[in-house]
Amino acid sequence: MPTRRRRQESHEKGMPQTGPSLLAGVSLPAAAILEAPLAHNLAWMQRFADSHRARLAPHGKTTMAPALFRRQLEAGAWGITLATATQCRAAFVHGVERLLLANQLVGAANMAIVAELIEAGADFYCVVDSEANVAELGRFFAARGQDLKVLIELGVPGGRAGCRTHEQAFELARVIAVEPALRLAGIEGYEGVVHGDDPERRIRDYAARLVEVAQTLHRAGLVEVSEPLITASGSAWYDLIAEAFDTAGLREQFTPVLRPGCYVTHDHGIYREAQRGVLARRVDLRKGLRPALEVFAQVQSLPEPGLAIVALGKRDIGTDRMPEPLRRYREGGRAGEALDVTGWEVTRLMDQHAFVRLPRGADDLRIGDIVAFGTSHPCLTFDKWRRLCLVDERLDVKEVMETLF
Amino acid sequence: MPTRRRRQESHEKGMPQTGPSLLAGVSLPAAAILEAPLAHNLAWMQRFADSHRARLAPHGKTTMAPALFRRQLEAGAWGITLATATQCRAAFVHGVERLLLANQLVGAANMAIVAELIEAGADFYCVVDSEANVAELGRFFAARGQDLKVLIELGVPGGRAGCRTHEQAFELARVIAVEPALRLAGIEGYEGVVHGDDPERRIRDYAARLVEVAQTLHRAGLVEVSEPLITASGSAWYDLIAEAFDTAGLREQFTPVLRPGCYVTHDHGIYREAQRGVLARRVDLRKGLRPALEVFAQVQSLPEPGLAIVALGKRDIGTDRMPEPLRRYREGGRAGEALDVTGWEVTRLMDQHAFVRLPRGADDLRIGDIVAFGTSHPCLTFDKWRRLCLVDERLDVKEVMETLF
Repeated sequence: MPTRRRRQESHEKGMPQTGPSLLAGVSLPAAAILEAPLAHNLAWMQRFADSHRARLAPHGKTTMAPALFRRQLEAGAWGITLATATQCRAAFVHGVERLLLANQLVGAANMAIVAELIEAGADFYCVVDSEANVAELGRFFAARGQDLKVLIELGVPGGRAGCRTHEQAFELARVIAVEPALRLAGIEGYEGVVHGDDPERRIRDYAARLVEVAQTLHRAGLVEVSEPLITASGSAWYDLIAEAFDTAGLREQFTPVLRPGCYVTHDHGIYREAQRGVLARRVDLRKGLRPALEVFAQVQSLPEPGLAIVALGKRDIGTDRMPEPLRRYREGGRAGEALDVTGWEVTRLMDQHAFVRLPRGADDLRIGDIVAFGTSHPCLTFDKWRRLCLVDERLDVKEVMETLF
Repeated sequence: MPTRRRRQESHEKGMPQTGPSLLAGVSLPAAAILEAPLAHNLAWMQRFADSHRARLAPHGKTTMAPALFRRQLEAGAWGITLATATQCRAAFVHGVERLLLANQLVGAANMAIVAELIEAGADFYCVVDSEANVAELGRFFAARGQDLKVLIELGVPGGRAGCRTHEQAFELARVIAVEPALRLAGIEGYEGVVHGDDPERRIRDYAARLVEVAQTLHRAGLVEVSEPLITASGSAWYDLIAEAFDTAGLREQFTPVLRPGCYVTHDHGIYREAQRGVLARRVDLRKGLRPALEVFAQVQSLPEPGLAIVALGKRDIGTDRMPEPLRRYREGGRAGEALDVTGWEVTRLMDQHAFVRLPRGADDLRIGDIVAFGTSHPCLTFDKWRRLCLVDERLDVKEVMETLF
C-alpha cells in the first residue's frame, strides 16, 4: 500500500485550505481564537496579578499552545504551570524556561524527562504530598547529581491530592530536609477542589491555611531556597487567593504565584459564571474577561422541521456543557452580517454530529450555513484540536496556532 | 524567546522514552492496543462479513490510525468509511484508495478537498439527503469536470440525517439523475440512530426499508453505476444488517457494505454489552470480539484512606462510561504479575486526574503503581492520543501507531 505523505498540516482538520476566512476557504469545523478578546484577557489577568504584587504562572494545560505561552510570557508571566512531565517538556522545547508542575512527579520515565529538562537549564518546580514520593525523588535525582525544587501540596479532606493536615505537611518538610537532592521551595494548593456550602468562606479559610503552613515552615527553617513560592488558584477564585497572599508579612518570605489557565480564552459557561462572582466581590475590577474561543461548524442536514444536524461533535468541542449557538453566517458571507440564532438549542452531541432544535421561523436556514458555537470549559475544547485559527473581527485567519497535547 | 524544537515525537504524551514496556520506560499515561485481541478482531469481523457475502468498509473515524487502516485492508476490507472530508484526505494520503464518506459533503473547502482526492485517483463515495446539497455538489463538481458518486441516505423520523420517506428518496434520485456530474451509486443508512422499544424489530424493519428503497430505485432505472452499494451498520447491530442484505435477489443488483468501526478494538462497556446481544442472536458465532484497547496510568497520590488519585483524566480516556480498573502492576514489574483491583471504582474524572475509591484491604498500594483501565466507547479514547502503543502479552511496545485527528 503506497504512502502519499504530503505536508503534515494538509491532512488535519480545521486547516485553512484555499482562503483566509472562517466564512470562506477554511475546512470546517474549525476552532477559532478571537484576537481582540484574547489580547484583552492576556493584559487583564497580568494587570490583576501585578495589582496584587503576585507572579503569574498561567496553567498551560488549558491550551498547550506554545504561541499562547509566548504571548503569556510577553505579557509578563513569570512562568508556565503544567500538569504532566510531557507537558513540561513540550513547553520547554518551545522556549518556556520556568516550569511549575502542579502535580507529584511519578514514574521513572517521567522523572527522566524532568532530569533532562533540568540538565538543559529549565527552572523547574514540582509538588509533593507523600514521604514515599519524596524518597523516590530523592533517590532518583541524587543518583544524577541534580537538585530538585519541590513545593509541599496542601489539600483538603475529601479533596484531591495534597497533605490533609498541617502536621503532615510539617512532617513531610522534615523528610525533604534530609534528602540531599531535594530543596523545599514553598507551598502549593488548588482551591478548585474545595467544595461545600458557603464556598467563598471555605476558600478564604483554605487560602489562610496555605499562608499559615507556609509561614510555619519558614519559621522552622525548613524552606531551603532563597525565594520560595506560595501558589494556588484556578480561574474561578483567583481574587480570593490573591487577596490572601497579598500581605506585606507574607511577601517578605514568599513570592505569591497565581496559576489561572482558562482566563486566557475565558468561556461561555462555567467560567463566565465564575467571573460574575469575581466581579460581584470586586467592584473595582469593572470589565472582566471576554470569551475568546469559538468553534465554527456547518449545517450538514435539515432532515425534518425544527431539526438541524450540524457537523460538530464530541471530537470538536468540550462537553461539560452543551455547546451554545452564538451566531450564524452564510458561507462566503461577511462577519458583519451575522444572523440570529435566538432559541437554538443543542440537544444532543454524537462523535461528529450535533442535533440542534430550531425555533419556529428558522425557515431561511440553509445546509452549509456556518454556526459559531461557544463552549465550556476551554481545556476540553483546546485538546480536540492540533491547530486553532487566530482570527480578527472579520474572521480572517491571522495565525494558525499549534497545540501539543 | 528561543525555540528548541527537537524530534516531533519527543514532546508528546504516551511515548516510549528509555525502554520498551508499559511497565518500564514509557511515560505514562499511555494508550495501549493489545496485539493478540486486535489480530483476533480484525480476522473475526472480516470473516463475519465474508460469511454474509458482504464487503467490509470499517468506519475509520473510530481510530484515525493509518496503521490500523492498513491492517484492516490487509485483512480483506474493501475500503474505509470516514466522517469528514479531512478524515478522507488523511486516509488517502496514507494509502487508502477507496473512501466512503458517510455524511453529506458540505462547504466549498470540504468539496475542494474531495475534488483533489478524486483528481488524485481516489474511489470516493458520499451520501446525500437533500435537493439543496445535490444542487451544490452538482454545480461544484460539474465546474471541475469531475464525476461524484453519491448514495442516498435513508434516515428515520426523529433520527439524525437522511431522507425520512421513500418518496423523498425517490424524488431525490430524480434530481440526481439530471445533474450531469452526479452518479447515484446506491443507498446508505445508519441503524445506530434507530431508537425505541423492541430495538431488534425496529432495526430489522429499518434494514428492510433500506433494501426496499434500493430495489425500487434500481427498478426505476435511477441507479447510475454498474456496481451500486447498499450500506449500513455500526458495531452494535451489524448482524441484523448483514442478514437483511444477504439475499440472492438483492446481491444481483447491489454490493452489501458493512461499516462497523469500534469492532477493531472493541471495548469494555457499550460494545461489550452490544456484543452479548449479537452472540445471543447468533449462536453460530461462538467466541466474539475481544477488548483490545486499554489506558495505563500511575497512582499519583494516596492522600487519605480509601482514595487513590491516578494520573488519568478526561484528556486521556473516553468518558461516555467511567474508566474501568482492570489490573494493577508494580512499576518495573512483569505483565504476568498483575495485582487485583476488585472493588476499585473510578468515582470522578477531572481533566488530568481520576479519583479511585478503594476497597478495604488495598493497603499494599503504592504511589507509582500502574493501573490498566478499560474504556467505552473506543472512538473517544483514540482521539485523546496522537500515538498509541501496540503491545504484546508482556506489555512490550512492538509498534507506535500514529493517529490523524
